[in-house]
Amino acid sequence: MSHTDPPGPVPAQVDVAVAARWLDGQVVRTPLLRSPAIDRLAGARVLLKAENLQAGGSYKMRGGLYAVGRLATAGHAGVVAQSTGNHAVAVALAARRHEMAATVVLPVDAAPTKVARARAAGARVVLAGSTVEERLAVARRISDETGHPIVDAYDHPDVIAGQGSASLELIEEAERAGTPLDALVLPVGGGGGVAGACLAAAGRPIEVYGVEPVGCDSLARSLAAGRPTPVQPAPTIADGLRPSCVGELPFAILRTRLRGVVRVDDEEIAEAFRLLLLELKVLAEPSGAAGLAGALRLTAAGDGGQRTVGVVLTGGNVEADLVARLATSARPRAEAAA
Amino acid sequence: MSHTDPPGPVPAQVDVAVAARWLDGQVVRTPLLRSPAIDRLAGARVLLKAENLQAGGSYKMRGGLYAVGRLATAGHAGVVAQSTGNHAVAVALAARRHEMAATVVLPVDAAPTKVARARAAGARVVLAGSTVEERLAVARRISDETGHPIVDAYDHPDVIAGQGSASLELIEEAERAGTPLDALVLPVGGGGGVAGACLAAAGRPIEVYGVEPVGCDSLARSLAAGRPTPVQPAPTIADGLRPSCVGELPFAILRTRLRGVVRVDDEEIAEAFRLLLLELKVLAEPSGAAGLAGALRLTAAGDGGQRTVGVVLTGGNVEADLVARLATSARPRAEAAA
Repeated sequence: MSHTDPPGPVPAQVDVAVAARWLDGQVVRTPLLRSPAIDRLAGARVLLKAENLQAGGSYKMRGGLYAVGRLATAGHAGVVAQSTGNHAVAVALAARRHEMAATVVLPVDAAPTKVARARAAGARVVLAGSTVEERLAVARRISDETGHPIVDAYDHPDVIAGQGSASLELIEEAERAGTPLDALVLPVGGGGGVAGACLAAAGRPIEVYGVEPVGCDSLARSLAAGRPTPVQPAPTIADGLRPSCVGELPFAILRTRLRGVVRVDDEEIAEAFRLLLLELKVLAEPSGAAGLAGALRLTAAGDGGQRTVGVVLTGGNVEADLVARLATSARPRAEAAA
Repeated sequence: MSHTDPPGPVPAQVDVAVAARWLDGQVVRTPLLRSPAIDRLAGARVLLKAENLQAGGSYKMRGGLYAVGRLATAGHAGVVAQSTGNHAVAVALAARRHEMAATVVLPVDAAPTKVARARAAGARVVLAGSTVEERLAVARRISDETGHPIVDAYDHPDVIAGQGSASLELIEEAERAGTPLDALVLPVGGGGGVAGACLAAAGRPIEVYGVEPVGCDSLARSLAAGRPTPVQPAPTIADGLRPSCVGELPFAILRTRLRGVVRVDDEEIAEAFRLLLLELKVLAEPSGAAGLAGALRLTAAGDGGQRTVGVVLTGGNVEADLVARLATSARPRAEAAA
């Protein structure tokens, strides 16, 4: 783990509930969507929480808004953030809403859509490095110079609690509909979202799973090693899932609460992307589609009983060129459907 | 007008309310979506009713389910329908839900997605001709042979009332949110949906507009001529908006209630498609995107005041190849944004 500062207190279930109340009316209450075709393929009832329809295009808006809002209340005049994209967009939008300055550090190869969205939200955008460590060093320097605190993309209790509010909404709406979740599946970057999901699900008989791209499996390795374990991230179309290491705070939650990690390859992510686009009629970014890819792998391995599986579609910020490429690249999905 | 049988009584506002109550719990209550980017471009508050997320992938499910359901109650064992696609899919799904036989007549160049969806729903699919007249003749012969009634795609009071329930939900949800509609915009094929919208809006100060592709403007010509007036439909990417003539029943409603018709070209439809996909994160079929294209043309011509404009995104059944083609074909939208 490269972080030198303690990332803060480990949040608990109550913090997710408090964040959800704070965010009520501040964020879009995104719909739960279903597709008969996806249900058939999964052999399960699949409830998809469409956070790609969230303000800012991803569920990162929740953690960003909650963390930045609390810093605004505490009197801070600005914030600094680093991310591969969606967290930076969320912090930029949140800072604008609270009339604060925002500086966001993005990788030099960041998706142009995400750079444009952060700039459109009024943030100062700094492009630096390609690894988390390089960007964090730049963010710390800017934080020292400006006195503005860093809002970490996942090693921050308010960010974890805020992200968890998406899972809590999904869990509670499934209960209201009479179809409580048996499992809840989220993609894993730094682990903040899936850690929030574990907190949101605490006390209920819901198995929470994380999904990592093959070769970007820091969480799986960390769970095996018993401590945060970095990887050299392999190339993947899921650009949001490439942090080199799961965060310390998420890991402290996940090590005891997560049921398991599923690895998916780019083909499976692309197939999930197409299902979401052509059957569910929504645009997910590959990182968001990875959750469904993992759910399909899980249900394919299951006993075929009628389970209810929740998936958080974490985001939808994707380049037009990539949409065009993924929409048509056909592949028989014999192995996943079998 | 080519229909020889009287298409039935002209439905009224109360019929939409009755249909909406009948359909409650039978169809998906689709969300109202918004995008800051679309609002900025329109200079208006644009509320998009996402009927592309409806069962069967289009709002045609409403009219199909309501009309077929009432025929089932009346003791019929089967139904016949003809359409360019979505109505056929809706009738097929509705018939399956009511355990009735369904025969659907589609054009020989129907979108493969729609043919596959009708077949998957258990309907007998007959591919015949490329005009409404040819398909209607085949449908009438099948109806005579089987004794199963035809559920017309738009010249049917229950279909108009059912389609109108989507507009009614949009109108009422906008009111509940404190942003009542100033205008309501729908694409026009045979005119059933926009006629239902006029009925749903009756008694409220809402201007209802129809949108037709350039060269497929039977409604505009019919309003000018004072009677249903066929056209030779020009090629358009909006395959669902190509009937050669507006229906008699819709026309009887629209001639006095519609505020106006907006014509849009394929470029404007493609640009609206991209906005919906990349900003709103949903997949609309070109016929569905035409409604937004028309709304953008209307608001561009407006006075810039903060109006609230509702748009029904009527459907999302589109071929992967077309998605790929439309996602990336760039065009500066100077004229619409000006």
